[in-house]
Amino acid sequence: MAFDALTTRDHPLSEAAIAQLFTEARTRNAWTDRPVPEALLRRLYDLTKFGPTAVNATPARFLFLTSPEAKARLSPLMSEGNREKTLQAPVNLIIAQDIDFHEHLPTLFPHAPGAKDWFADEAGRREAAFRNSSLQGGYLTIAARALGLDVGPMSGFDAAGVKAEFFPDSNVEPNFIMNLGYGSDENLFPRSPRLAFEDAAGIL
Amino acid sequence: MAFDALTTRDHPLSEAAIAQLFTEARTRNAWTDRPVPEALLRRLYDLTKFGPTAVNATPARFLFLTSPEAKARLSPLMSEGNREKTLQAPVNLIIAQDIDFHEHLPTLFPHAPGAKDWFADEAGRREAAFRNSSLQGGYLTIAARALGLDVGPMSGFDAAGVKAEFFPDSNVEPNFIMNLGYGSDENLFPRSPRLAFEDAAGIL
Repeated sequence: MAFDALTTRDHPLSEAAIAQLFTEARTRNAWTDRPVPEALLRRLYDLTKFGPTAVNATPARFLFLTSPEAKARLSPLMSEGNREKTLQAPVNLIIAQDIDFHEHLPTLFPHAPGAKDWFADEAGRREAAFRNSSLQGGYLTIAARALGLDVGPMSGFDAAGVKAEFFPDSNVEPNFIMNLGYGSDENLFPRSPRLAFEDAAGIL
Repeated sequence: MAFDALTTRDHPLSEAAIAQLFTEARTRNAWTDRPVPEALLRRLYDLTKFGPTAVNATPARFLFLTSPEAKARLSPLMSEGNREKTLQAPVNLIIAQDIDFHEHLPTLFPHAPGAKDWFADEAGRREAAFRNSSLQGGYLTIAARALGLDVGPMSGFDAAGVKAEFFPDSNVEPNFIMNLGYGSDENLFPRSPRLAFEDAAGIL
């Protein structure tokens, strides 16, 4: 259900929408038992996929764990401090990156038929995959909030273990992991400080 | 000016807002001469800064080039195919990463007074800075659209040259570069295909 009406391009969204996406959104460390339907996860992908990536490579891969069996495979691979909340969240999302994303470029970047050959070097692919799959993780974070979901991203896990458990037979590697669902206010940190504009930015 | 009204958390934004952020937003390759006021760039930072990063490190640094002099320093460092549109855009944003972000953790992550020491190793810092500054680039992309701006991100530039020209005396390095402003429809590619859910995602 949406309470905001037509917005034309070049106009900012309402303060309420911006609060939902940015200024009042919080990383959640505890979760209500409200379920997340599969259709909403598919909708989340269908927004995220439109975010810009270099040569439209969209190297991120998204593995949503929703069954108790799948979540039980991930849980022992999380850092101890991340384990309980990961079990509690209705969805654990492994955001991964396909180092061999260039195989899809003939389809994804039809403007330049030779684009696949620009990525013959694996070190270059690895850098592009890491940058662009992380960008896509940023798009997904805000897309989730746009759909009314909360997120809880985490870097503390056994990356080699997650690779071996979930992506053994491909050149796909985990980047980071995110809990998804409808958060509760339990275990919410006070909002941490942010750097002032002058300490993180400049205008020349 | 906003046309959407109060939205409560747990509700999706309107289709119009989602179209502005994701489904109808396009990477722009040409720009109108409508200026971008400095206050809007500061507002853009003030939304971006709230996006989640590991240990709240917010390692991205944002250098907005708006003067003809600053833009002329960047232009020769862009790949030839990116040069004209970069000169045309009212703002060129260098999204950089501070490899020494850990120096700020006593302020940014007060929950854990020892957090700075977790990042003594430069290789680990470099990985965290790259992941999280890229995430922040994703947040900024959607925040710009939420404010009515268009973006045109680019990876094709001389990274060592941009480092030497703009960040010579610190451990700050460029990640990617983005044109910002109000785009025109000139030189707009047709929307490229995206991977189907089944090719980029899965549910276990």
